Amino acid sequence: MFSFTMAARQGRARAGVFTTPHGDLLTPVFAPVGTQATVKTLTPLHVEELGASLILSNTYHLYLRPGDELVRDMGGLHEFMQWPRPMLTDSGGFQVFSLAQTRKIDDDGVTFKSHIDGSTHRFTPEKSIAMQENLGADIIMAFDECSDPNDHAYAEIAMRRTHQWAERSLRAKQREDQALFGIVQGGVDPRLRLESTDFIASLGTPGIAIGGLSVGETKEEMYSTLDLIEPHLPEGKPRYLMGVGTPEDLIEGVARGVDIFDCVLPTRLARHHAAFSPEGRLNLMNASFARDSRPIDPTCDCYTCRMFTRAYLRHLINARELLAGTLLSIHNLRALIRLVGEMRASIVEGVFEARVPRWLEQWKGNAERSRKGVVDIE
Amino acid sequence: MFSFTMAARQGRARAGVFTTPHGDLLTPVFAPVGTQATVKTLTPLHVEELGASLILSNTYHLYLRPGDELVRDMGGLHEFMQWPRPMLTDSGGFQVFSLAQTRKIDDDGVTFKSHIDGSTHRFTPEKSIAMQENLGADIIMAFDECSDPNDHAYAEIAMRRTHQWAERSLRAKQREDQALFGIVQGGVDPRLRLESTDFIASLGTPGIAIGGLSVGETKEEMYSTLDLIEPHLPEGKPRYLMGVGTPEDLIEGVARGVDIFDCVLPTRLARHHAAFSPEGRLNLMNASFARDSRPIDPTCDCYTCRMFTRAYLRHLINARELLAGTLLSIHNLRALIRLVGEMRASIVEGVFEARVPRWLEQWKGNAERSRKGVVDIE
Repeated sequence: MFSFTMAARQGRARAGVFTTPHGDLLTPVFAPVGTQATVKTLTPLHVEELGASLILSNTYHLYLRPGDELVRDMGGLHEFMQWPRPMLTDSGGFQVFSLAQTRKIDDDGVTFKSHIDGSTHRFTPEKSIAMQENLGADIIMAFDECSDPNDHAYAEIAMRRTHQWAERSLRAKQREDQALFGIVQGGVDPRLRLESTDFIASLGTPGIAIGGLSVGETKEEMYSTLDLIEPHLPEGKPRYLMGVGTPEDLIEGVARGVDIFDCVLPTRLARHHAAFSPEGRLNLMNASFARDSRPIDPTCDCYTCRMFTRAYLRHLINARELLAGTLLSIHNLRALIRLVGEMRASIVEGVFEARVPRWLEQWKGNAERSRKGVVDIE
Repeated sequence: MFSFTMAARQGRARAGVFTTPHGDLLTPVFAPVGTQATVKTLTPLHVEELGASLILSNTYHLYLRPGDELVRDMGGLHEFMQWPRPMLTDSGGFQVFSLAQTRKIDDDGVTFKSHIDGSTHRFTPEKSIAMQENLGADIIMAFDECSDPNDHAYAEIAMRRTHQWAERSLRAKQREDQALFGIVQGGVDPRLRLESTDFIASLGTPGIAIGGLSVGETKEEMYSTLDLIEPHLPEGKPRYLMGVGTPEDLIEGVARGVDIFDCVLPTRLARHHAAFSPEGRLNLMNASFARDSRPIDPTCDCYTCRMFTRAYLRHLINARELLAGTLLSIHNLRALIRLVGEMRASIVEGVFEARVPRWLEQWKGNAERSRKGVVDIE
């Protein structure tokens, strides 16, 4: 039901095809985030039209609202939100651990309070898998503990727990039509990262996620961690770099053998009036755009750039019209999906490595990361 | 450049074609309101896809933000907001007069404070026409004074002013590619209404607007006012009933010879979680919809009803996702546009009068009107 075939590679960069029950993913692929069973401010038709093939949704949020059992009873996540293509859910762990003040971790699982109403809940690996089976995404995640990358002592504890929980997640899994990915942890400690990579690779899951990056470490630490572990990852399986990232991170990630990315950045920036552009990130609330008759990016093929001026977008923002968030989300998502598509084509053509400097130059003004956390995860 | 031809009539109901520089309007027609150069939460493509042929935008709001001169310099309202079909602007009068605490009317015009920043501004008939020429809609309105329908003494003062201002508006008009409609006022006093109808009709404008209704009078007063004036309106010109209305008001209006309607109700209800339906108006925030797998209206052909369950819409509302407003706006607008389209077809087929009772029965649970005012005009 799941297979990963390599169409081309150049250096460590890979162009693959990951087959899922809801269609093929051409990798590298960037997944928009639809935290609460919706990519914020967009219809599923918008998301399809801007070229997305994979959407991520968050188990923690859907467990609380509307409830994973309700989603199951409504036919599963694809049917509920009317997304016909592949989907991915996270395990719920990342959000729960980011509730630093209200959660208690033990070796069996984690007890936490809802950010919505303060009610007490408990997640375990078995619970996470049961929830993800109710939601019914094509790609699901083992329950893991993501720790502070700068706390090396604790990173080892969290890593050992992550390994035990990965084994328990695998044992708990019942559905055959979902691919469960193990998650590599270990902070930015090379010894731990390698141990975790080897352990997770040994589990034989159909894909491997790389967790615990883009969570507070430097970009250099993230890139060197990817450099370190890449030779230890199984070649024939897709690698998913969780919660990444900026255009620069996508370029550097693909160059280091990553196949799948997701990030809230494009849609969150959109709600804060910011747009990716080759001129650098634009804040369209700025008065300098009031009479700017250009599109955000004249080279972009998205609906927003084909139709609307910066002046109009600036007006919508200034007048607090929600359409601004919709139009900027369309553009920001399209920009990353187009970038990843261009990278894939260049790998197939054998010109990826030659183009990396140009892409990095083109996108260097868009490098700043987004903070992450539970309430504003999207 | 403008012509109005009658395709069919039945009783007082009329099926016409109003030709404008941006295409033909098949009347009766319902115009969604795009107050600030956007139909709230919808892309222009959404608005086209749900079958709208005419959009109204508000001169008062666009004068304040982004400024009518800026819109002119960006190519006019059609180009600015990327709406390719006919547009209508109001005169700005209605919004200004609703700023009851901060405006002063004299025979020359009205001085008022902006609801945004309290700054002082002045509108006159000449200013209103200049602004509407900058905006560039196909159909524009004479500057009028809309008075409290229950203050009969003042209604006469406002009516006389409206008549003088209509003449000044006509004299001020310069563009040939815009149809300026005079506006009938006179409150609910039959004598004044008839005098106003005859006066405005005598001006020979290419269409006639009926103002000062659906602003606090009873439904019976509105319908009897329409009954009273209809024989005095020129047959060969479109009649526009401003700011109306509910499904029931559209049916009663068409039956009384009205050709053009606009109202914020469908989009405003959408933002308050309410949907038109043959079961009556549904508040989709209600927990009873949590597991309701039906669409809002199984007979509706809109994107929302074709794709999504009430359970999903209820989840979006409960999770405060903006997509809820988009999807409900699509449905509510489509419901009125479909109703008006069905009425037109039935006039052409000669079965309109026979169907009125069924429509009234079908839509009776959706009759409640919306309050109007400047800040929440949309």
